[in-house]
Amino acid sequence: MAQQHLDPPTDPTAGPVTSDALAGYLRAQATEFLRSLRQHRETGAGDGGPPGRAKSRLGESGSAESVSAARALRRSARRISGSLHTFRPLLDADWSEGMRPELAWLSGTLAREHAYGARLERLLGALNRLSGSATLPSQASGANAHPAPKGNLTVGAAKAGALLDRQLTLARTRAHSAALQALGSSRFHAVADSVAVLASEVPLTPAAPATDLRPLAAAAADRLTDAVAALPLVTAGHPYNAQALVHGLSADTAPQPQDAPWHQVRLLLRLHRYARELMYGDECPTDVRLLAAGQALNRHRDAAEAASAAASAARTPRIAPATAYALGVLHADQRHEVEAARFAFQQAWQKEAVRTL
Amino acid sequence: MAQQHLDPPTDPTAGPVTSDALAGYLRAQATEFLRSLRQHRETGAGDGGPPGRAKSRLGESGSAESVSAARALRRSARRISGSLHTFRPLLDADWSEGMRPELAWLSGTLAREHAYGARLERLLGALNRLSGSATLPSQASGANAHPAPKGNLTVGAAKAGALLDRQLTLARTRAHSAALQALGSSRFHAVADSVAVLASEVPLTPAAPATDLRPLAAAAADRLTDAVAALPLVTAGHPYNAQALVHGLSADTAPQPQDAPWHQVRLLLRLHRYARELMYGDECPTDVRLLAAGQALNRHRDAAEAASAAASAARTPRIAPATAYALGVLHADQRHEVEAARFAFQQAWQKEAVRTL
Repeated sequence: MAQQHLDPPTDPTAGPVTSDALAGYLRAQATEFLRSLRQHRETGAGDGGPPGRAKSRLGESGSAESVSAARALRRSARRISGSLHTFRPLLDADWSEGMRPELAWLSGTLAREHAYGARLERLLGALNRLSGSATLPSQASGANAHPAPKGNLTVGAAKAGALLDRQLTLARTRAHSAALQALGSSRFHAVADSVAVLASEVPLTPAAPATDLRPLAAAAADRLTDAVAALPLVTAGHPYNAQALVHGLSADTAPQPQDAPWHQVRLLLRLHRYARELMYGDECPTDVRLLAAGQALNRHRDAAEAASAAASAARTPRIAPATAYALGVLHADQRHEVEAARFAFQQAWQKEAVRTL
Repeated sequence: MAQQHLDPPTDPTAGPVTSDALAGYLRAQATEFLRSLRQHRETGAGDGGPPGRAKSRLGESGSAESVSAARALRRSARRISGSLHTFRPLLDADWSEGMRPELAWLSGTLAREHAYGARLERLLGALNRLSGSATLPSQASGANAHPAPKGNLTVGAAKAGALLDRQLTLARTRAHSAALQALGSSRFHAVADSVAVLASEVPLTPAAPATDLRPLAAAAADRLTDAVAALPLVTAGHPYNAQALVHGLSADTAPQPQDAPWHQVRLLLRLHRYARELMYGDECPTDVRLLAAGQALNRHRDAAEAASAAASAARTPRIAPATAYALGVLHADQRHEVEAARFAFQQAWQKEAVRTL
């Protein structure tokens, strides 16, 4: 059955939500943060350190446990940071304003290693798909049709894959070292100490106990709704509008400005989601439409960054024309993924709007 | 108001259509053929001949009148040839089987010049669009925002444009020479003589006057319906299915085999359309859905050939990586146009099917 809970934090018929909910949520996330941190240390993510792992390749730098621990760490850091933002007026201003950039630094540093790995996987998968290996069963000569054998790739596609592998694996290794360094830094220890304090005592303002959280959660929902309203959703709902590739060949090497509002909505959707979790507590029902919209925006971000990585690889000096050609096809393919993700978001969001009305 | 006439040649309630309709249609098309040929000669398309025009550029080889005369010539040649095919049993077999390949040769030869010009225009337009010049009004500094100033193109896009311009203009010039040569050949004069005979006397079989054309027209409609049923329309109706680019990087340089069934439907749709014209006579109502489906298939063909031209330009020896990259983006863009055209066809065809049922 589809969930009907859509924007419950703004539901005017529900009773007030007090600062106890905020304190409870922050304490739980802080506890989760500390647990993940302990797990991350125990699973030996720091073993060897940057020098010994400098040449580590995709999939080798960190066990599955340490990867999942790092993910859990980022997950709780984002939730703490998001709640500090949404419910700012209830929290000690100096403390919360000092904490947020530190949490952002931490989760950003931890996220990069994973992001480079995922980007490489996405791009290599697309190269295989574009070589017609993964989807045409008639081309599969043996039992092992997927993943595609490298022999099906053209020289250009194979070289493009090797170049991306080199560049993104290097970036990933560097990100891994940076993450390990960060986790050993005094800056990190200060963040961990702050979170440890948060796990036992949330620094609320004197007025907090008398404050209803609902208007603040509603404001987060409104910021999301306003940002979505500013998106070009009519265009996005028109399949094959060819908008995402409009700057595919522009001289500008910076990230595409047309992506920014979508990235912004992604962040606001996340804040809204965390606010919902906080307001509902353990009973927070899954909102499948919110989930679909969020997944579309993640895909949007991933494809945009993959497209940009392909374009940037194509600027490597002295590459063969065939390599550059394959990277051009790959760039355009990922920009179309961007467009497809916008379409998917529009479809998911439209459904939600209809249900809400 | 939307036209409700969808598949009238198969309408069982209408009266029989006799061979008079076929003879009248063929005579009219033959007359039109001869008129266009006269006009083509009078507008001086043959002036100068191949040597003098060898370096003619896009838009210079032939006046607007001679271009429209050539188009009218092709148009009637296609209609004669199509009718000979659909209503074969009513026509003298030797004569009609001898005539069809000659008409195909003629309209193919005449079509090539136009096709190369249109392909170049499509590709240069796409390069401008991909450089973000034509669609972003904020980038337009002056009053003349369209067509985009060359200054907005990257070096790669500009070089790719220049390369395509060189290659397709050369091909176009050669096609122009070949067309002029064809129009002066004894082979052409033999075709023109046959058409002149057709304009006065259609070589029907003795049994033709007693034959009802409707089953033959219905068979043409059935061939179309069957071919459409074999298309992957479920996939095509799913926006952003990413199927058209599946061989975007495959080693095969031949036209994409996945396009062939769509090209075949395009031809069958045309035969069905000509049969409708013939059955209705001058009263033939416009079927907007058939029109939309046909336009989508034309777009499909044009984009497929443009994508192939971009891929083939990228195989030019010694091009710069930036040029190859731009051609890769362009290739992928046109393959997405192919996918978009399939979606458009699916949408148009679905509408038609619903109305017919």
